[in-house]
Amino acid sequence: MSPSDVSGPAPTPVDCLGVVGVGLIGGSFALSLKAAGGVGRVLGFSRTEATLRAALALGVIDEAATDLSALARCDVVLLATPVGQLPAVMEALARHLAPGAVVTDGGSTKRDVIACARAALGAALPRFVPAHPIAGAETSGPAAARAGLFAARPVVLTPVAETDAGALARVRALWQTTGARVLSMDAEAHDRALAATSHLPHVLAFAMMNAVAAREHADAMLELTGGGFRDFTRIAASSPEMWRDICLSNRDLLCAEIDDYAARLAHLREAIARGDGSALEREFARAREAREALGRALGGGAAPR
Amino acid sequence: MSPSDVSGPAPTPVDCLGVVGVGLIGGSFALSLKAAGGVGRVLGFSRTEATLRAALALGVIDEAATDLSALARCDVVLLATPVGQLPAVMEALARHLAPGAVVTDGGSTKRDVIACARAALGAALPRFVPAHPIAGAETSGPAAARAGLFAARPVVLTPVAETDAGALARVRALWQTTGARVLSMDAEAHDRALAATSHLPHVLAFAMMNAVAAREHADAMLELTGGGFRDFTRIAASSPEMWRDICLSNRDLLCAEIDDYAARLAHLREAIARGDGSALEREFARAREAREALGRALGGGAAPR
Repeated sequence: MSPSDVSGPAPTPVDCLGVVGVGLIGGSFALSLKAAGGVGRVLGFSRTEATLRAALALGVIDEAATDLSALARCDVVLLATPVGQLPAVMEALARHLAPGAVVTDGGSTKRDVIACARAALGAALPRFVPAHPIAGAETSGPAAARAGLFAARPVVLTPVAETDAGALARVRALWQTTGARVLSMDAEAHDRALAATSHLPHVLAFAMMNAVAAREHADAMLELTGGGFRDFTRIAASSPEMWRDICLSNRDLLCAEIDDYAARLAHLREAIARGDGSALEREFARAREAREALGRALGGGAAPR
Repeated sequence: MSPSDVSGPAPTPVDCLGVVGVGLIGGSFALSLKAAGGVGRVLGFSRTEATLRAALALGVIDEAATDLSALARCDVVLLATPVGQLPAVMEALARHLAPGAVVTDGGSTKRDVIACARAALGAALPRFVPAHPIAGAETSGPAAARAGLFAARPVVLTPVAETDAGALARVRALWQTTGARVLSMDAEAHDRALAATSHLPHVLAFAMMNAVAAREHADAMLELTGGGFRDFTRIAASSPEMWRDICLSNRDLLCAEIDDYAARLAHLREAIARGDGSALEREFARAREAREALGRALGGGAAPR
C-alpha cells in the first residue's frame, strides 16, 4: 500500500451535480460544494420520497429527480446509495450519462463497487472514479448532512487501469473542494487497510456491546461503565444494514483480520492466565506508544475527558 | 449483582485528610472535598518527591508527609497508590491510624485490595471501606487532578462482613460530597462486572492498536482512520503498569470474559465467512439497540461527531 497525497488545478465549477442517495454522505457532498461556490444546481434522487422531500426542505438539493434518466442533465454525479442499489443505478447511468460527465461514489469498500461498475457501466467505465470518504458517523439521513463533514478527512480514490486521466483529475479536485485530504491507492490495498482499521473495530464493538447486553444484570452492569466503555462502543450504534453489507462485501480480507486479531487476543489471554506481568506490560506499552503517536498525528493527543 | 443507590446524612467535616498517592484519583478526591468545604487540611504522601512537590505547588495538598507515620494525625485516609504499594502502606496504617479514623481506597479491583487489607490491617480492618471510583482517564499525576472528576460518576463501595457501619456511612457520605453516584455491591460481583465492562475493553483496545502498529505500512494505514478508530482505541493510551496490575489481579474473571468474547467473535466470523447477512444484521441491530439505550441512560445519546 502506498497512499500518496495528490493535488491538481482549481476545479472546473459544476453546472449540475447529481446526487443519488441524499443522506449523510451525498447531502454533505452537495452542501460542501455549495458552500465553496463550486456548484450551480443540485439534482437529488432517492428511492424514498420522504428523504427526497426532507433534502429539498433542508436546502441540501435544489431539485428532486423522480427518475434516474434526469441524471442526463448532470456533468458530475455522486453515487451515495447503499451498495446493494448500485447495479440498478449504474445501469441507468450507462444509458443516460451525458458525454464528458464524470461519476464518483462514496462506498466503504471498493473492490465490489469496481466489479459492479465493470459489469454495469459499459462505455462509461473510464469516467467513473471510485472514492471512499472516511467520514462516517452513527447519524444518517439528509438532516445529518453538513458542509464541513469532509474537512481534513481522508478521501481515498481507487482508480482502475481504464480510468480516464481527466475524469480522475476532475473528481480529485472536487473532493479537495470539500476540504478533504485526497489520497490514491489500489482498491485491494484500500479494502485490506479498511478491514483492519474500520471493519474489524466495528465487528469488535458490536460483539462487545452484545457480550454485556446478554448478561442477566446488564442494566446494573452498564451503570458501572465510564467514558472508556462509552467511547469503545460508540461505533456499535452504527447502521446494522450498512455494516452487514460492508462485512459481506469485504468478507475475505475481514475474516483474515479477525483471525489475526483472535490470535493476538489468545496470546494476551495466555500471558494473563500464566501471570506474565512483563509480557503484558510490554504489549500494553507498545500499544500506548502507537496510540499516542496516532494522537499526535491527528493533532489532538488523547481525547480529553 | 445488585448495586443499590445509597444515601445518608450530611457528612461530618474532615479535620485532616490523608491522601496516599497524590495523582489523578487522590488529588481529585482532595480537590473535590476542598471545593465542597468538607475538609480542614490535606496531608499528602507520595514515594516520589517530585510528585509531592507538584501536588503542594498546585494546591492539591496543604502539607507533604515524609513518612507514613504522619497519617496518625488524619481522621480520614484515602489510599490511591498503585495496588502493588498497598501491603506496605496498610501495614503502616495498622500501626499509626488514629482511633476512629476511617480509610477508603481508589483501586480498580476489589477482591485483591480486600485480601491485602485482611492480611495487613489487623484491628483496623473494620474501619476500611473498599471503594472504586469509576472515573479513570489516560491522564495521570497531580496536574491531572480536578475537583469535578467524580461528579455524576459511579463510585462502588464493596464493604465486607467486618466493615463497621459507622465507617461505611462516613465513607459513603464523603464520596457523595465529591458529587459521585455511590453504589454498593459485593467485591466479586464488582470484579466480574468490571472484567466485562472495563478490563476486557482495555485488553481489546491494546490488542487492536498492536494489530495495526505491527503492519508493514502502519503509518499509511493509520492515515486512513476516522473518529471511530480513534474513539475505539482511546483507552489503549492508558498506563501499561496500571493495566498490567489490573489484569493480573483480576485474572480469573478476566480470562473467563475473554473466553466468552472470543466465542462471540468466532460466531460472528463464521456468519461473515458463510455470507449469512441476516444473522449479521440481527447481531448488529441488537448491539445498536443496546448502545443507543446506553447513550440515552448516560444522557448524551450517541456522541456527536
